Amino acid sequence: MTVNQAYCLIDALLRRPVRRTPVWMMRQAGRYLPEYRRVREKAGSFMNLCTNPELACEVTLQPLRRYRFDAAILFSDILTVPDAMGLGLHFVEQDGPHFERPLQSAADVRKLPIPDPEIELRYVMDAVRLIKNGLEGRVPLIGFSGSPWTLATYMVEGGSSRDFQKIKGLMYNDAQTTHVLLDKLAQAVTRYLNAQIAAGADAIMLFDTWGGTLSALDYQTFSLSYARAVYEGLNLNAGGDNPVPAILFTKGGGQWLESMAGSGFSALGLDWTTDLAAARLRVGDRVALQGNLDPMVLHAKPEVIRRKVRFTLDQYGRGSGHVFNLGHGILPDVDPDQVQVMVEAVHEFSPEIQG
Amino acid sequence: MTVNQAYCLIDALLRRPVRRTPVWMMRQAGRYLPEYRRVREKAGSFMNLCTNPELACEVTLQPLRRYRFDAAILFSDILTVPDAMGLGLHFVEQDGPHFERPLQSAADVRKLPIPDPEIELRYVMDAVRLIKNGLEGRVPLIGFSGSPWTLATYMVEGGSSRDFQKIKGLMYNDAQTTHVLLDKLAQAVTRYLNAQIAAGADAIMLFDTWGGTLSALDYQTFSLSYARAVYEGLNLNAGGDNPVPAILFTKGGGQWLESMAGSGFSALGLDWTTDLAAARLRVGDRVALQGNLDPMVLHAKPEVIRRKVRFTLDQYGRGSGHVFNLGHGILPDVDPDQVQVMVEAVHEFSPEIQG
Repeated sequence: MTVNQAYCLIDALLRRPVRRTPVWMMRQAGRYLPEYRRVREKAGSFMNLCTNPELACEVTLQPLRRYRFDAAILFSDILTVPDAMGLGLHFVEQDGPHFERPLQSAADVRKLPIPDPEIELRYVMDAVRLIKNGLEGRVPLIGFSGSPWTLATYMVEGGSSRDFQKIKGLMYNDAQTTHVLLDKLAQAVTRYLNAQIAAGADAIMLFDTWGGTLSALDYQTFSLSYARAVYEGLNLNAGGDNPVPAILFTKGGGQWLESMAGSGFSALGLDWTTDLAAARLRVGDRVALQGNLDPMVLHAKPEVIRRKVRFTLDQYGRGSGHVFNLGHGILPDVDPDQVQVMVEAVHEFSPEIQG
Repeated sequence: MTVNQAYCLIDALLRRPVRRTPVWMMRQAGRYLPEYRRVREKAGSFMNLCTNPELACEVTLQPLRRYRFDAAILFSDILTVPDAMGLGLHFVEQDGPHFERPLQSAADVRKLPIPDPEIELRYVMDAVRLIKNGLEGRVPLIGFSGSPWTLATYMVEGGSSRDFQKIKGLMYNDAQTTHVLLDKLAQAVTRYLNAQIAAGADAIMLFDTWGGTLSALDYQTFSLSYARAVYEGLNLNAGGDNPVPAILFTKGGGQWLESMAGSGFSALGLDWTTDLAAARLRVGDRVALQGNLDPMVLHAKPEVIRRKVRFTLDQYGRGSGHVFNLGHGILPDVDPDQVQVMVEAVHEFSPEIQG
């Protein structure tokens, strides 16, 4: 595992010295790339693409052929775990994920099985193994899952939601059932991420897409405490001196960074609303920070992209502990050349800042 | 103006002693009330209702007949100013506001007129006068407007937006035109709010619904600085010892309270993601705080509503400077009896906390 020493992403996530700031991009394997759209068309549906390890491997590797990214991220969906629990995930064009059998009662929650990742989610583990093989150690592979709270929102709402009426109804009126659900999800997500690590993932990331819809107290109770439970169950230290870094990203969680920084995770993802300099002061040396360019900047003129990249790097400032990323996933209509401008600007500016 | 002395809302907004915590509710005149829906049906369209002073007055007063609220808020829309600038506001059922003539070029921005509120927005001022007359001094009247940034988003996008691609494209690629637009809007909003104050509004509120979609720096540059410009142009002190309090509400602005607290406004509105106790510590004695119950709590069981009201009051704690409110507008499908539970709980619990 000595190759790990060459991974600047891992070094930055563990706040070890780096010569430049590593860069990758949420949804870097995705619709903005014409080569992705061709594979997606061949697959027929998004779920076909996710569940076919060869195709998932192919689209994971695509952005690395174009850009000097410092990580691959497994091509998959945050909702594979609830699908494996029997809810029936499918995707409706322009309308996002839907579950055929959303949770409708406490009995539904009690009946939920905890999947064996090497059986029901075998297609993900096979993809991880294929990707690791395809990467040949050039860059690390990030595995991921949705957070227990975020999975719960989709499982109860049945899909995307504007106001989260059903899951909040459950949370406010029947906290006990909500905790049973979140506890099961924490167990399932822990097993799933551990299986990804065993299959070769070099870092993992927990996407808490909807934690930011909660009140400050409910965030602690229903989102962060279960993210922490996942963290505590992860096998991160099997590699001895090369632990697997774990990243926690709560979109809209900028107000809660102090408590997130105490959750055990090595790094926090930041959306673009958070001031990176202020965030660094707030979390101190407890965690690395990942982010946080507004994805909309990739629609701007190249000189604006370069200026905003420079600003983001300067905001974090000298010293390790920063991974450059967008503050959320890249939008499907971005011109791939714009991404090149961003990536090259990180490569150009950051050695001087770190040097 | 001695009646002002009896307005506990005004006292709390100015951090003067109160015997109990005042309470009102964003969108308290609205679709959750059957008597509102009857008037709305009679009016034919939402814009007909907004532009008819008698009907606007009637729906403004309706919630005060049901609930022991401590304020009336003008029934109107945040987008009346751009409508008066010639953009042609209309509402599409289930799909929110639309402009017939959204801004599409720098030339469109330069041509924008600044409306005379007593001419182009006369219907609003007539409504304010009718409402003041109808209130007979029982409770104060809150006037309001959308913030310059929030108005700009709708004017450029043409309506509601998921990702604000057009306005952010303008902001990133042509900051100069964006500033011209925001400067005009700040002037127009200032005149509009001053006209509402002259017509009798006892407090005003600036709704910055979309400030929270910006990066920390862009929030300062494109939203807060123009909210401050509005504040600085307001005639708040014509009443001598009874200044008109001004409230700034940036949804999703919880990370930026310190700078908002230095903007001059008497009070800050908080959405439900902000910890009220932490917020009070952060802003000190610079501003009062208004909020911040999750609107979804009004779908919960009465005992949950009461517990959450108690928690919110306790979080703020002793001393003046808190106005109880939801963290965002009430949802249209809430049972009016649930609102009664919330309002009565504030009346029941807060004298003990303040006493």
